[in-house]
Amino acid sequence: MAEALNGLKRTIMCGELRESNIGQKHVVMGWVQRKRNLGGLVFVDLRDRTGMLQVVFGEEINKSAFEKADLVKSEYCIAIEGELVKRESPNKSLPTGMVELKGENIKILSESQTPPIYIKEDLDTDEMVRLKYRYLDLRRPDMQNIFKIRHKAAKIVRDFLDENGFLEIETPMLTKSTPEGARDYLVPSRNYPGMFYALPQSPQLFKQLLMVSGFDKYFQITKCFRDEDLRANRQPEFTQIDMELSFVDMEDVIELNERFLKKVFKEILDVDVKLPIQRMPYKEAMEKYGSDKPDLRFGMEINDITEVVKNSEFKVFKGAIENGGSVRCIKVPNCADMGRKQIDKLGEFVKTFKAKGLAWIAYKENEIKSPIAKFLTEEEMQGILKEVDAKVGDLILIVADKNSVVFQSLGALRLEMAKKLEILKDNREFRFVWVTEFPLVSYNEEEDRYQAEHHPFTMPMDEDIQYLETDPGKVRAKAYDIVLNGEELGGGSIRIHDTKLQEKMFEVLGFTKESAWERFGFLMDAFKFGPPPHGGLAYGFDRLIMFLSGTDNIKDVIAFPKNQNAFCPLTEAPNVADGKQLKELGLSLAEKNK
Amino acid sequence: MAEALNGLKRTIMCGELRESNIGQKHVVMGWVQRKRNLGGLVFVDLRDRTGMLQVVFGEEINKSAFEKADLVKSEYCIAIEGELVKRESPNKSLPTGMVELKGENIKILSESQTPPIYIKEDLDTDEMVRLKYRYLDLRRPDMQNIFKIRHKAAKIVRDFLDENGFLEIETPMLTKSTPEGARDYLVPSRNYPGMFYALPQSPQLFKQLLMVSGFDKYFQITKCFRDEDLRANRQPEFTQIDMELSFVDMEDVIELNERFLKKVFKEILDVDVKLPIQRMPYKEAMEKYGSDKPDLRFGMEINDITEVVKNSEFKVFKGAIENGGSVRCIKVPNCADMGRKQIDKLGEFVKTFKAKGLAWIAYKENEIKSPIAKFLTEEEMQGILKEVDAKVGDLILIVADKNSVVFQSLGALRLEMAKKLEILKDNREFRFVWVTEFPLVSYNEEEDRYQAEHHPFTMPMDEDIQYLETDPGKVRAKAYDIVLNGEELGGGSIRIHDTKLQEKMFEVLGFTKESAWERFGFLMDAFKFGPPPHGGLAYGFDRLIMFLSGTDNIKDVIAFPKNQNAFCPLTEAPNVADGKQLKELGLSLAEKNK
Repeated sequence: MAEALNGLKRTIMCGELRESNIGQKHVVMGWVQRKRNLGGLVFVDLRDRTGMLQVVFGEEINKSAFEKADLVKSEYCIAIEGELVKRESPNKSLPTGMVELKGENIKILSESQTPPIYIKEDLDTDEMVRLKYRYLDLRRPDMQNIFKIRHKAAKIVRDFLDENGFLEIETPMLTKSTPEGARDYLVPSRNYPGMFYALPQSPQLFKQLLMVSGFDKYFQITKCFRDEDLRANRQPEFTQIDMELSFVDMEDVIELNERFLKKVFKEILDVDVKLPIQRMPYKEAMEKYGSDKPDLRFGMEINDITEVVKNSEFKVFKGAIENGGSVRCIKVPNCADMGRKQIDKLGEFVKTFKAKGLAWIAYKENEIKSPIAKFLTEEEMQGILKEVDAKVGDLILIVADKNSVVFQSLGALRLEMAKKLEILKDNREFRFVWVTEFPLVSYNEEEDRYQAEHHPFTMPMDEDIQYLETDPGKVRAKAYDIVLNGEELGGGSIRIHDTKLQEKMFEVLGFTKESAWERFGFLMDAFKFGPPPHGGLAYGFDRLIMFLSGTDNIKDVIAFPKNQNAFCPLTEAPNVADGKQLKELGLSLAEKNK
Repeated sequence: MAEALNGLKRTIMCGELRESNIGQKHVVMGWVQRKRNLGGLVFVDLRDRTGMLQVVFGEEINKSAFEKADLVKSEYCIAIEGELVKRESPNKSLPTGMVELKGENIKILSESQTPPIYIKEDLDTDEMVRLKYRYLDLRRPDMQNIFKIRHKAAKIVRDFLDENGFLEIETPMLTKSTPEGARDYLVPSRNYPGMFYALPQSPQLFKQLLMVSGFDKYFQITKCFRDEDLRANRQPEFTQIDMELSFVDMEDVIELNERFLKKVFKEILDVDVKLPIQRMPYKEAMEKYGSDKPDLRFGMEINDITEVVKNSEFKVFKGAIENGGSVRCIKVPNCADMGRKQIDKLGEFVKTFKAKGLAWIAYKENEIKSPIAKFLTEEEMQGILKEVDAKVGDLILIVADKNSVVFQSLGALRLEMAKKLEILKDNREFRFVWVTEFPLVSYNEEEDRYQAEHHPFTMPMDEDIQYLETDPGKVRAKAYDIVLNGEELGGGSIRIHDTKLQEKMFEVLGFTKESAWERFGFLMDAFKFGPPPHGGLAYGFDRLIMFLSGTDNIKDVIAFPKNQNAFCPLTEAPNVADGKQLKELGLSLAEKNK
């Protein structure tokens, strides 16, 4: 049974009805959340995008409607016509709880089998099932709410950028490799068999070309693609808010984006972002938080105790310092009584970040307990406690190694301890920070060469350009990341617009002229014709929506996401292709895949 | 020489300066349109996105700025600081023509080689050159204007749909084949070597799933992909305004979209679209205009003269009628004196549409001239003239064949004659028409089966469902196209939401249960769980922008388009791929492409 509308028109949405509508005739349409037959009366909770409404059918109201209403089951799609009346036993937890609709006519628009998942908030069903029946999963009010937020956020972004003189311009999807470094998705060409387009990892080169074109301010909310092994909260296709501005320096980009963030968080969450947003040089972020995306909602900063122990005979400390490394620690309050087994687990934890081990000092009421006490002089021990301003109850966790390992392991340990101690539980804070002064390049030990930290078009800081050839590792970039609660929300840079400087940069990165030309020739060409100074920023839109909707699962903010294997359980993509089509593309399958 | 901004800030855009700004100090930045050295003075026309401004440098104003200004050439990117003054010899054709900036300081931000194309309006340079140097082509004010219109139109679309309760929801790019019938672009999967995603030809299936999900009203401005041999004004990737609504019938979709079109044309072009927009059943469009996208800006409708000549002994007419075809004609005013050669050319023209020939009657002042006069009785000849209401000077062009050939050739001939006679020259009219009551299916003679005219989810008209099994060709669909000046601007339909009807439809189209399931199983699955009645519409956004910006070349409205071979002359995509990557994808190149 699937009845047609036959001219029946919905007059109002379920969630909109209030006491002021009492006495009105209405037609509502939606899905049956539940039905109860109390003998002489049938109650249906009807759900649409806006909310829930109780409908009552009775023999005395309309006999045939009453009988038909008794046939409906959960998730039937129905239309009901009737008069809105005051509800005898109000439900104050529901916005429409003061009223109900007297069902005088009902159409069963379509039937439903018993759904394999519950249509309710906070569902904890297996994710594969949720993704396979995504169309049912998306009926859940909390999921619907996320996509309302996503829609609204995109609208606010566009309105703001429009008001600030940006033009939204679409860049190609079928294009050439972008310089982002990850693996591209390829698209075989039929017109040129054996050749391939790449799906963009970002519109980077095109937005720079748009600046050369004189568009002045560009933005786009657009899909980007990376064929990487998927970590949690990565998707093969994701959405970016991408912007680029001409005739600007770093301060201009930051100022605009601070107003932008303030507006988005105010309008969606009614949260006031205090401006200006704190800034922190990369070096400080690493030294204090062991991360270039520090979570500033809590303390436990890293302390450098190298100076205190620099003459120590303790092999582990001594070796680290001699190799140019350091000895650093974090101080965890109220954990001096942590059991040996638990501390051992923390030792295992830091080993996953390549630390060789974890030293510790427990500052108890009556004693100082530490496996390394025997290796330290009393002066050294007291020096450490003084340096970190230790109080009774503190547990001091120490790593000695080369700096990159020390930072990474203590940075991770800091977050791990915050999690264990539930420091951030019920924390509603949004703590923004701009991380700036990134190194322009970093040394890749495996490949024995420098590589761009952001991408090869990033401008060095004016005062550091002098070191570009002599000491590239020392050069800081005009790059900036906006970090929120320990997550990178976006990042960008001022770009090089001077061809000579760009060529020097390619040299530093070990590109031959030919290979630079092969990859970026068209941009280099464009830069021969009066490129303006320019810079920009890109946000991960999906991550922004995660913050705005309070979920920590990226799949919740994408209507039809892929699973960890880049597979869609709903459509079962990817799929086999037609042999004839492969032939047109000049391709054949490797033997084992046939 | 490429100077840095070093803190210099632009204070205003070139095109914004007026007499009210006289006396103010300003910093402007942009490109040199041209430079003239008149001895003691150097004049620079400076261009940015907003317009052109004259800057004057002189030894008396600032000597070093004057000397530096003399170094600049066309398309150098520069910044100028100075005071705005009244211009001695105003240029009234320029909005800023009453003023000029006295150049007190100049920075050469970057130099430019001599550009290979002129940066001016109405450029007629070879398209390949324009596309190769697209970043320069886009500097031209008329191109900049198109992208301002495109941005504004997208904004209006989104604002309108937002106000009307639509949510913009992104659907996947890496997905499964869609049922649009054209060739998909494939994307090889690395996680599943030998398997492929398809890029979407449209979000059709996903938007229907979103309706099953209860989102009620969805829209998206999104990229779609078709790997087809490119006709003029087709691009492999194009942009669609896609929408879908629940609990609606055809009238609801049409009413909303009429308000939508009215708003877009009013706000961009200040054109008033008169509502309601005329409707025309498919049958009438074919019979009167020989096309399902009739251009109603001029007459020359097709006349059916089958009845008049039904007893004619003229073989060509007789044969056509006996075979179930017809004899039809158009009447072209003021062409009775057209020369024989020209008429022969028209005969060749209709042959490209499979017509066997073109008969004609020239109604001259003193005679009726016609090569077929000898085959017709006087009564038949007079009958034809009377049927088409011929006047002196008319040329009647007749095709006799099966209906599809008659319609196609006379429809094309009608447009061809309008072009030849320049009937539409300087026509500024926007003539909209809804074409409705399309056939649901058409018979594919080659494959000896029915095929969907739109797609297999299109709802039959209520009164025609009864014929679905007995006489499918007779069934009209709840499908509608919005046609503007003879071009299809958009189209859509009400969808089937009844699983049983959908299954019947697949049967009519000759799908086995398995093949229907293989392709659309997940949608069929979804329809088991209370799908709402729903329907929608999609516009070609690029084509809409062509109308709004007055260009007839789709490449003008796409920032970085492909050429006719789906090749990008700028980036040189597609390109060869890395052998290692192909291996990861489980692919190898066919021998000849290695």
